[in-house]
Amino acid sequence: MTEFARRADRISISGIREVFEAAGEDAINMGLGQPDFPTPEHAKQAAKDAMDRGDTDGYTENKGTRALREAISDKHARDNDLDIPPENVIATAGGSEALHIAISAHVDPGEEVIYPDPGFVSYEALTHVAGGEPKPVPLRDDLTMDPAAVEDAITDDTAAFVVNSPANPTGAVQSVADMREFARIADEYDVVCLSDEVYEHIVFDGEHRSPMEFADTDSVVVVNACSKAYSMTGWRLGWVAASERRIERMLRVHQYVQACASAPAQYAAEAALSGPQDAVSEMVDAFEERRDVLLDGLADMGLTVPKPAGAFYAMPAVPEGWVDAVIDRGLVVVPGAAFGEGGAGYARLSYATSLEEIEEAIDIMREATEAVT
Amino acid sequence: MTEFARRADRISISGIREVFEAAGEDAINMGLGQPDFPTPEHAKQAAKDAMDRGDTDGYTENKGTRALREAISDKHARDNDLDIPPENVIATAGGSEALHIAISAHVDPGEEVIYPDPGFVSYEALTHVAGGEPKPVPLRDDLTMDPAAVEDAITDDTAAFVVNSPANPTGAVQSVADMREFARIADEYDVVCLSDEVYEHIVFDGEHRSPMEFADTDSVVVVNACSKAYSMTGWRLGWVAASERRIERMLRVHQYVQACASAPAQYAAEAALSGPQDAVSEMVDAFEERRDVLLDGLADMGLTVPKPAGAFYAMPAVPEGWVDAVIDRGLVVVPGAAFGEGGAGYARLSYATSLEEIEEAIDIMREATEAVT
Repeated sequence: MTEFARRADRISISGIREVFEAAGEDAINMGLGQPDFPTPEHAKQAAKDAMDRGDTDGYTENKGTRALREAISDKHARDNDLDIPPENVIATAGGSEALHIAISAHVDPGEEVIYPDPGFVSYEALTHVAGGEPKPVPLRDDLTMDPAAVEDAITDDTAAFVVNSPANPTGAVQSVADMREFARIADEYDVVCLSDEVYEHIVFDGEHRSPMEFADTDSVVVVNACSKAYSMTGWRLGWVAASERRIERMLRVHQYVQACASAPAQYAAEAALSGPQDAVSEMVDAFEERRDVLLDGLADMGLTVPKPAGAFYAMPAVPEGWVDAVIDRGLVVVPGAAFGEGGAGYARLSYATSLEEIEEAIDIMREATEAVT
Repeated sequence: MTEFARRADRISISGIREVFEAAGEDAINMGLGQPDFPTPEHAKQAAKDAMDRGDTDGYTENKGTRALREAISDKHARDNDLDIPPENVIATAGGSEALHIAISAHVDPGEEVIYPDPGFVSYEALTHVAGGEPKPVPLRDDLTMDPAAVEDAITDDTAAFVVNSPANPTGAVQSVADMREFARIADEYDVVCLSDEVYEHIVFDGEHRSPMEFADTDSVVVVNACSKAYSMTGWRLGWVAASERRIERMLRVHQYVQACASAPAQYAAEAALSGPQDAVSEMVDAFEERRDVLLDGLADMGLTVPKPAGAFYAMPAVPEGWVDAVIDRGLVVVPGAAFGEGGAGYARLSYATSLEEIEEAIDIMREATEAVT
């Protein structure tokens, strides 16, 4: 009877980890999904001040402190033109827990969740945690997700589809027209659109718009986090924003799987969201410069790569043996297949690393490309 | 198709919250499940130092930092005479996430989880999150759980049973003989014994022993946390300790629902676990003094209460209308029925509040008792 639950059989240990373990200690790391900038000083200071006041000792409200949820509400008004009252927000342990409670509250065993392939590894895994059926859909040539492909994939058993823009692992940004379509589809088919917007600030070309802006019903649930915007992946602070009835159901799960987000992180996040935003634009400028250097290098060595308009990833199509050849030469990248079948033949390069290292990495990739072609 | 998942229908919003909402602002609060002591200064300082070093910005290992897991391993050697290597530990977002990943990794939809009734509300709720079937078992007159009752409740569909000693909401401490029996039952029936030991340090009579000590197989999974021992409920830092194969399966769930425990909390917990332990014994001494005052007061007003040997709760049997009468008079207590059917006719009193307030509370309870009997 102590067999493990089937959900745990279906979830695999992330393929990203295997890559790290294969790499040497002084390898250049283009495998990491986190910015190489520090958490802003004023965010850290706010956490320290809260500790000194004794405000982090005990549980906060399950949803998070009122002040944090007000800061999140203000952020949505400022950045997304969305009116989301603090009551309609739950602070979570990063985007991870936010996705988890959103899927768990909406997806019954056997129901389907549609998501981009290649796509962020958690969509498949968290669908399994809920006992749901993953329905990956292939991407367009430019690595964006076609609303028509989502619409075609919807069945009577579909509970939700995931939109992730800017996207991990592709760096692709969906157009405003696409976002309108995702909202229409969610409304029309009465299926939840789970919009993972954790990279929203990191856009170089085009603009980020939330499908929630375009929905006529409460069909869109927004997942966001301080992790990527403020380089706070270690703190674990994200949130869900949704209608009152959806929040009520997600809160039922959240209050037992987490109780509340870690209190020091809540105070740091409040300061990050409501304080000066210069660190964000400096980081985005740095990422854009690195992207351009990287894309030039990749073009120069003859690799095809859809131009990523956001996040800090590029996803070139690579010849067979390329990933191993690169890793053997001391550069960590992640094989595209780690993000789904549709990622086979690609590699994910994270440019959350210094320009100097990117230049070195380009040399390594050129060598590897020559060796395997 | 946007119906909510059935698991979310089955989970109720905690009855404890309703009580808080019913109470006035200046009510005396004997409803809270957290110590009224501050987080130790050296734990806070360690979190601040880690922030200054930049160690909290990025993800830690999914399992938690090596240093934290070593401190947890040392704690088990020191306090529990258990040899648990750091590899066999996952740091979690408090006891909540620890219970969640343990149940999710072991319980399939339709499988049964046995737990004490009255018992901590999360056992039922997290069983529902996993799609399992809750099997509450009634307690002995002294509010401990009878191993024979657990053995009788086991069927072919049983995946796990929960032992919680010292217990919330009863304050009861299981005997060493009981713990041996729980281990035997887990081994013999090949069912997981989930041992929730978050109150382990708060024992006044008898001693805490983990069933893991007595198991011949890897049938026991230990859940523990810094929350109650070091007054760190707001930080959300707990852990699971188990065999390698069980850790591997729980890690599959943990890495996607949480990624890693909040980094500042990990550094604070490491310091709390490995630093001076005086704060713990001072807190336990204070709780014991309060317990004795409270028990005298309850006996004096004619209420029957099994003597709680640990935690910071007492659970008197109370006449009908007593809880409302007490709350109306400005004292927050939780009706026993919030912890399961077996709790009906009882009230949970948390004495994580000052002696002065306990004296006042006794006066209120005496008045209420006279009013309803």
